[in-house]
Amino acid sequence: MKTEEGLFIVVSAPSGTGKTSICREFLKVYPNVKFSVSYTTRPRRPGEVHGEDYFFISRESFKERIAQGEFAEWVENYGHLYGTSRKTMKDFLDKGADIILDIEPRGAKTLKQSYPRGIFVFILPPSISELKARLSKRGAEDDAAMKKRLEAAMDEIREVAWYDYVVFNDKLGRAVYYLGAIYVAEKSRRERPAVLSKISDFLR
Amino acid sequence: MKTEEGLFIVVSAPSGTGKTSICREFLKVYPNVKFSVSYTTRPRRPGEVHGEDYFFISRESFKERIAQGEFAEWVENYGHLYGTSRKTMKDFLDKGADIILDIEPRGAKTLKQSYPRGIFVFILPPSISELKARLSKRGAEDDAAMKKRLEAAMDEIREVAWYDYVVFNDKLGRAVYYLGAIYVAEKSRRERPAVLSKISDFLR
Repeated sequence: MKTEEGLFIVVSAPSGTGKTSICREFLKVYPNVKFSVSYTTRPRRPGEVHGEDYFFISRESFKERIAQGEFAEWVENYGHLYGTSRKTMKDFLDKGADIILDIEPRGAKTLKQSYPRGIFVFILPPSISELKARLSKRGAEDDAAMKKRLEAAMDEIREVAWYDYVVFNDKLGRAVYYLGAIYVAEKSRRERPAVLSKISDFLR
Repeated sequence: MKTEEGLFIVVSAPSGTGKTSICREFLKVYPNVKFSVSYTTRPRRPGEVHGEDYFFISRESFKERIAQGEFAEWVENYGHLYGTSRKTMKDFLDKGADIILDIEPRGAKTLKQSYPRGIFVFILPPSISELKARLSKRGAEDDAAMKKRLEAAMDEIREVAWYDYVVFNDKLGRAVYYLGAIYVAEKSRRERPAVLSKISDFLR
């Protein structure tokens, strides 16, 4: 019996904020939440699994899916395409499953227009200096490339203005705890169908 | 330096739902949150401490405080008066302290009118049968008295309709965890002054 549409949480962060680790740890604590796997044309990194981290597809295949309207959102980032399948989301939500999506701010903004009831969480590093340190760890780049990455991160951070929640990732465990609290609190909102249904059992 | 007004959480529940225990345990986990002590004319029960559980005052003194406009809300319940001091709340909130208040639904409703930014949490027992069991534990009463108590509880439960969050108290630990999650999530809302201030440090 379907009592409600699942809840979905979108997690965004500038690169180097540790968002992937946070989502992974969150999923261990809340195994009933499903991870919505995105599609991408970027090359697979060591350790990444097709169908778990991303669906790694060719640029041609991606373009075809865009043409078919298969993506709820898609963006181009550093020359690679990333997108969220409408069908993946719908299948989970129709089953009443809660999902978590790891999406960068431009894509998240598109998603918010189609799904205003989603929960949008922005993860920030504890400070600018920490952000710089983390960005530079990502690769020994020259100053110009580093500056460009930092500017891109700042552009992303400005998007925090329309998110629902902000989590500061000073420690992984703390950030996961905060993200979990947001999930649990949102599930407890009086207007959620599952909560309303339990209330009406009382008042019957 | 005062960066923000404190956040306040109002917890309500029909009697016999274990709300006092939940608040007590919550305060152990979040010792930075302060408990706003109410005033009452009801007799002190064994183990209760004046100034900790309640300020126990006479009916005359209570009436005088009403006349002075000292209460943010007050109600009469089973012949006893209960009220929340405006000053107690203001002192905490002005200092930026977060507070938790244990208030029955009629009083909470009054409070919501003066402080719409409060977080209103309703605690429900896991089921009607559990509510009945807990009410009857409160004293070996006859059927008529029991029926009256149950009807009063049902009247209170109907007020859940305007609360922000609902927590089901099937297990004490779980209810405390849920209440804590609501608190942590609310502190993480993007529009909270403390969060906005950290964000603006980034964008400066």
